[in-house]
Amino acid sequence: MKKINVGLIGFGNIGSGVVKILRDKKSLLSDKIGLDINIRKICDQDITSKRNVSVDRALLTRNPRELIEDPQIDIMVELIGGVHPAREFIIDSLKKGKNIVTANKALLATHGQELFTEASGRGKNIYFEASVGAGIPIIKSLREGLVANKFDSILGILNGTSNYILSSMSGDGRTFEEALKEAQKKGFAEKDPTLDIEGMDSAHKLILLTYLAFGRMVNIRDVFIEGISRISLADVNYSKELGFEIKLLAIAQREGEDLEVRVHPTLVPKDHLLASVDGVFNAIYVEGDLAGDLLFYGPGAGQLSAASAVVSDIVDLTKDIKAGLFRPMMNTVGDKSVKRLRRIDESFSRYYIRFTALDKPGVLAKISGVLAKFGISISSVTQKEKDKSQLVPIVMLIHETRERDLRRALNIIDRLEAIKEKSVAIRMEEV
Amino acid sequence: MKKINVGLIGFGNIGSGVVKILRDKKSLLSDKIGLDINIRKICDQDITSKRNVSVDRALLTRNPRELIEDPQIDIMVELIGGVHPAREFIIDSLKKGKNIVTANKALLATHGQELFTEASGRGKNIYFEASVGAGIPIIKSLREGLVANKFDSILGILNGTSNYILSSMSGDGRTFEEALKEAQKKGFAEKDPTLDIEGMDSAHKLILLTYLAFGRMVNIRDVFIEGISRISLADVNYSKELGFEIKLLAIAQREGEDLEVRVHPTLVPKDHLLASVDGVFNAIYVEGDLAGDLLFYGPGAGQLSAASAVVSDIVDLTKDIKAGLFRPMMNTVGDKSVKRLRRIDESFSRYYIRFTALDKPGVLAKISGVLAKFGISISSVTQKEKDKSQLVPIVMLIHETRERDLRRALNIIDRLEAIKEKSVAIRMEEV
Repeated sequence: MKKINVGLIGFGNIGSGVVKILRDKKSLLSDKIGLDINIRKICDQDITSKRNVSVDRALLTRNPRELIEDPQIDIMVELIGGVHPAREFIIDSLKKGKNIVTANKALLATHGQELFTEASGRGKNIYFEASVGAGIPIIKSLREGLVANKFDSILGILNGTSNYILSSMSGDGRTFEEALKEAQKKGFAEKDPTLDIEGMDSAHKLILLTYLAFGRMVNIRDVFIEGISRISLADVNYSKELGFEIKLLAIAQREGEDLEVRVHPTLVPKDHLLASVDGVFNAIYVEGDLAGDLLFYGPGAGQLSAASAVVSDIVDLTKDIKAGLFRPMMNTVGDKSVKRLRRIDESFSRYYIRFTALDKPGVLAKISGVLAKFGISISSVTQKEKDKSQLVPIVMLIHETRERDLRRALNIIDRLEAIKEKSVAIRMEEV
Repeated sequence: MKKINVGLIGFGNIGSGVVKILRDKKSLLSDKIGLDINIRKICDQDITSKRNVSVDRALLTRNPRELIEDPQIDIMVELIGGVHPAREFIIDSLKKGKNIVTANKALLATHGQELFTEASGRGKNIYFEASVGAGIPIIKSLREGLVANKFDSILGILNGTSNYILSSMSGDGRTFEEALKEAQKKGFAEKDPTLDIEGMDSAHKLILLTYLAFGRMVNIRDVFIEGISRISLADVNYSKELGFEIKLLAIAQREGEDLEVRVHPTLVPKDHLLASVDGVFNAIYVEGDLAGDLLFYGPGAGQLSAASAVVSDIVDLTKDIKAGLFRPMMNTVGDKSVKRLRRIDESFSRYYIRFTALDKPGVLAKISGVLAKFGISISSVTQKEKDKSQLVPIVMLIHETRERDLRRALNIIDRLEAIKEKSVAIRMEEV
């Protein structure tokens, strides 16, 4: 049986999962594709630590050049993460005629255009199913399964850490800090959780989904990113009382000829499927003009889950190689009805707003007065019981408003004498 | 640009959707795949009625042979439904060297093995994404995206009509008959709804998912099928009180070395995502050994939704043709850990049971006595208020029990003097 040789750079958690699957499922895979997938070489800086798979020492090297220069390697799997030297390894591998599988969202989100151009110029492919939603086949679905669809929006819960924290606040009544600690204890959050909880990881993944759905590689600087670290348990609870769950959503949405690309905490109606996505799970809600509203749901992380996606990419490339000819990676065609990116301050949204005020007459009138001046219309108001500091939380839901107008109004309101804390505004999504 | 010629047999609802998409999205698709997809001929018995797309009369014919014999046609799309003459059209098209796209679950569920063997013997492919879950890319996901996974179970809400009726009973308090009428009025149910509500449509789709996930083409006679026509509003309501929704689930599940393949109404815990799938939507819940628990959700029917899937199949075949060589359809490899099919009477399940009894002392003791004799253990009992006929509904949840034992026990119980109606037993699924 013909052999396809795989080189693996990065023998960490996912990498050893890939080796494990390629070994455990060897006969299943060769039965399915009629080719043998062979791991020819594995590169990692650490080649002495024990993994949960044992490999022949002869396969291991510290020198990536041994893989890049090896003409027998057909497919290079990059799993070291980070931008450098992953970018250089991939470019050099492409130059040596190899196809690429990677799970590196940070790299693709920042250097994707360069890498894809390099690949297609050489008739090679870069597959990256594991970079979003681990084992959920969302990349393949957008690229192939929904190939004829034009998309109106994509709304994703793309970061398991953040979703675990928010679920834990909502379900178990933990504060943000308690929930984060719990997540760290369980291994769901890094020691430095910034990338996850401040939305950067979601933004990287969103850039890839936006590329597939709208054909645009958006610059990370043009993505509005707001994390969950300032979400209070009070806001989670008030939202629940109003019939909503707060989720960190990554959203790419067409508005006329504009495209909005943003990551932020969002109130989602409880009866929407996205509101039921709990714990470290991910979900991607896609509105296609033909297929309709679809949801893809599954674990957002995990060694075997991500490795499952890496192996499916390897298998796809193997089939391409077997066919003897390369079909170019599905060209990602720009959605011509999208003319520009819309800046966040021009975007429209409903909002949940919480003011913290002195308990005295006339406060509400003053707040409503300012909002009215900016044409902002209130859909509901609840004044809560005084908190320990004798301040009164006032929770409002407002109708669709331009971000800029709301920010201006809140600036003025926050300087009112009766307002004692910076007001909180969280977007609402009507899906 | 090279042209790929498509022949279409069946110019009905989905067929005209396909024509519409191939026309409206012509440049999008040719940009993406670098090939022109051309509709060369359309066959239907009715070539005079107006559709929501207008086509050149010269494309239309009543004679399928014109398409089958046309050597210029690369891809034959079969959308007439039913077993005959669809089977013959497909076999003859394969013999003439064409690749096939079909949405015909009834045909594939009954003659799939024959057709797939015929196709692979000729190096041709049969794609059938639209046959399950319309535009949801579940076939591609099972076959390609999850290629390395071994599956523990698949649980699907595969019939939109049944799900609409059950949602309407649960959400709006309609009786089965009222809900069915409503569904018919809205066009969600056929005049003769038997295939949908009695579970046959779900069973056909389940056979295809089982084939993909477990590599076995199960005979329809070996699928246990129970529809929803005997589900009463009372049972829907009692289930809700207990924290469950009743859904028509299509289930393929590994139990040790056995495989169970069954379609029946099922109590699903309210907090499970499947319980939130309302209306005509479909959802497929998949447990993979690597990717974990995944859910795929979307509209289960609709002209453009199904046509979206047909077009994705056409595009996949077009890419295969462009590559110049055919990769064989992913071989569906038998899951070797599955040794046999388990008959329903050997299957184990928890059950919801409703007895209808005279309101007199000792009835519950008698019922429990019979259950105990069969080793059936009760997990909860609720005695409801007398109904209009002065009979008392007794609702029980029982622990996991072998179907055969339960049936025997119920046979005895139903002959007790105090029992006035045939008792109702609905399976529960702990997902």
